[in-house]
Amino acid sequence: MSIRIGIIGYGNLGRGVECAIKQNKDMELVAVFTRRAPEKVSILTKEAAVANIAEIENYKDKIDVMILCGGSATDLPEQTPKYVQWFNVIDSFDTHARIPEHFANVDAAAKESGKVGIISVGWDPGMFSLNRMYAGAILPSGKDYTFWGKGVSQGHSDAVRRIPGVKDAKQYTIPVESTLASVRSGENKDFTTREKHTRECFVVLEEGADAAAVENAIKTMPNYFADYDTTVHFISEEEMKRDHSGIPHGGFVIRSGKTGWNEENNHIVEYSIKLDSNPEFTSSVLVAYARAAYRMAEEGAKGCKTVLDVAPAYLSMQSGEELRKQLL
Amino acid sequence: MSIRIGIIGYGNLGRGVECAIKQNKDMELVAVFTRRAPEKVSILTKEAAVANIAEIENYKDKIDVMILCGGSATDLPEQTPKYVQWFNVIDSFDTHARIPEHFANVDAAAKESGKVGIISVGWDPGMFSLNRMYAGAILPSGKDYTFWGKGVSQGHSDAVRRIPGVKDAKQYTIPVESTLASVRSGENKDFTTREKHTRECFVVLEEGADAAAVENAIKTMPNYFADYDTTVHFISEEEMKRDHSGIPHGGFVIRSGKTGWNEENNHIVEYSIKLDSNPEFTSSVLVAYARAAYRMAEEGAKGCKTVLDVAPAYLSMQSGEELRKQLL
Repeated sequence: MSIRIGIIGYGNLGRGVECAIKQNKDMELVAVFTRRAPEKVSILTKEAAVANIAEIENYKDKIDVMILCGGSATDLPEQTPKYVQWFNVIDSFDTHARIPEHFANVDAAAKESGKVGIISVGWDPGMFSLNRMYAGAILPSGKDYTFWGKGVSQGHSDAVRRIPGVKDAKQYTIPVESTLASVRSGENKDFTTREKHTRECFVVLEEGADAAAVENAIKTMPNYFADYDTTVHFISEEEMKRDHSGIPHGGFVIRSGKTGWNEENNHIVEYSIKLDSNPEFTSSVLVAYARAAYRMAEEGAKGCKTVLDVAPAYLSMQSGEELRKQLL
Repeated sequence: MSIRIGIIGYGNLGRGVECAIKQNKDMELVAVFTRRAPEKVSILTKEAAVANIAEIENYKDKIDVMILCGGSATDLPEQTPKYVQWFNVIDSFDTHARIPEHFANVDAAAKESGKVGIISVGWDPGMFSLNRMYAGAILPSGKDYTFWGKGVSQGHSDAVRRIPGVKDAKQYTIPVESTLASVRSGENKDFTTREKHTRECFVVLEEGADAAAVENAIKTMPNYFADYDTTVHFISEEEMKRDHSGIPHGGFVIRSGKTGWNEENNHIVEYSIKLDSNPEFTSSVLVAYARAAYRMAEEGAKGCKTVLDVAPAYLSMQSGEELRKQLL
C-alpha cells in the first residue's frame, strides 16, 4: 500500500512536491488543496484531485501525510498547528528566529490529536542544520561556517524590484572563493559579512529610468546590500528571460575542529549542495521526511519533530536490512 | 552526572577516544582495558584506571558505555557480542561485507541483555554511509560516488612492507581531480577503478635491495595496485620519519541526482572530510555515538543499532530546545 500524500498550496514548492512524489514509488498523491477555485488549478498528476482548502477535513481518512507548501510569514504559523489536528504534517517553516514558538504551537496541537508534525524541513533550516549538528557533536572544539550560493535570493530580488525605475530584477548571492579557501585550510579565522559573500544584481529598467540612481539605491540599501560588495548589471527584458529564469541555489556548511590531547590536529568537515532548482530540491527533502512522518506515526510517535529528531533510516524506501547491506 | 566510559584496547583508536572524552564535558573515562599487564600501559587521564581485560565484569555497574577499539578482523566479531552482555557498546567494525552477520550477532546478544550496541561507527562505514543514505533518500533518481583520500591506507602500506627488500613503506590513496570535477559537473558518468584514484608509495629499501624489482613488485600487485596508476618514491629513513609519520585521511561522498516532472534539473550533494588524524577523527565519532547509546538505553532501547538508526539529536551535548534555537 502506498503512502497517501496531500499538498496544500500549489506554487513552485507544491509543484516540486508533486514531481518528487512521482519519483518515490511507495507514495501516491491523493489531492492538492488550494485557496483558488479548484477548476482553475491544473496539476500534472492525472490520478490526483484538486480541492478547495475548505474541503480538507473530508480527506482526513484518505491522506496519511499532508505537505504544507505555503509561506513562513503568514501561512505556516496558522496552517501547521491547524491541520495537524487531522493529518500528520510536514512544513518548511524557515523563519529561524520564530522556530521555537512554531515548534511549541505544533507540538501542543499534535500531542492533542496524536499526530506527527515535522517542521522546518528543507535545506536551511534542514540539511544544513543537520550537518552543523553532526559535525559539531563530532568536533566539539571548533568553528562553524555557513556560506550560501551561488544562488537566487528571492528576498533580495524583491527588494531591488521595489526601487522606483526597476521593472524586473534578480539577485545572486555568491560566496567569496578566497574566504572558502581560508576556511578549508583550517585557519579558523573570523570573517566580516563583506568577506563572506558578494551580491550580483541583474536589473531591467523602466523606460527613462536613471540607471545611476538605481545603482546607488541598490548599493546603499541598509541590511540588504550596504554591508556587501555589490555588482549591478543593467540588461534587457529578453536577456532577463533568456539567462535568468532559473532558480538555482546552493551553499556550504563547514566545520573546522581540533582533536588530540593538546588539540594538535585539525579536521575539516564540509557539506555542500549545488542545485539547479531550489524549490525542487526543498520539495524532495519534504517528501523524504513525509515518509519518516508516516513511519514514526505508524509506530505510535506523536508531537512536533524536526530533522534533528528523525533517525535517518526512516527517510529511505529501503529496509534496514537492505540499507545495512548496501549502504553501510 | 557524567556518562561513564570504558575503553577496550589502547592503540591509536583507544588513545583517540581518550583524547575525545577530554573534549566532551558530560563524559568521564573510568577505565582502559588491555590484554597486556596493566602496569605496562601508561594512559593520559590521571583519574582513570588501567585494568586487565579479565577484570572487565567487575566494572559492569561502573561504566555506562564501553567503546571497543580493537580490529575488525578478529577482535570485534568476538568482543562486541560478548561485552554487550554487561555494557552498552560502540564499535567501529568496518568489514563492509560482514556487517549483516555482525549486526545479527550483536543484536541477539543485546536483546538478551537489554543493552544497546551501536556498530560500524566511524566515517566509512559511518558518516559516509549516513550521507549516502540522506542524499539517496532525497534524490532517488541519481548516482552515488565515493572517493577516498588523500590519505594513508594501512592495508596498502602493509602490503608494500611485505615485499622482500622493503624496510618501511607508506601508501597514499589520492582521488583523481579531473574525475571529481566531472562528477561535480553533473555528467553522471561511470568510471573505472583507474579513473577514480591513483596510488603513491614512499618506500625505504633494505640495504642492497633492488629498487627496480621492488617498484615492479608494487605496480603489478593484483587487487592492491595492478588496477591503479601507481607512483613509487624511494626515500631515506629520515625522510620517512620527517615527512610521513602522520596518519591523514579524507574523502568525498557525492550524489548527483535529477528532479522535475521530466527530470530536467540536476543537483549535486557533496560531503567531504579532510583529516589530520584518521584515528582521532574516528574516535571522535565513536564518542559522540557513545552519548547516543547512553541516552537511547536510558529511554529503554535495546538491541543492535547502526548510525542509520540513531536520531541526530542524541549525539549532541545540547538539549533539543538549545539545538532548535541555535542550530536549526
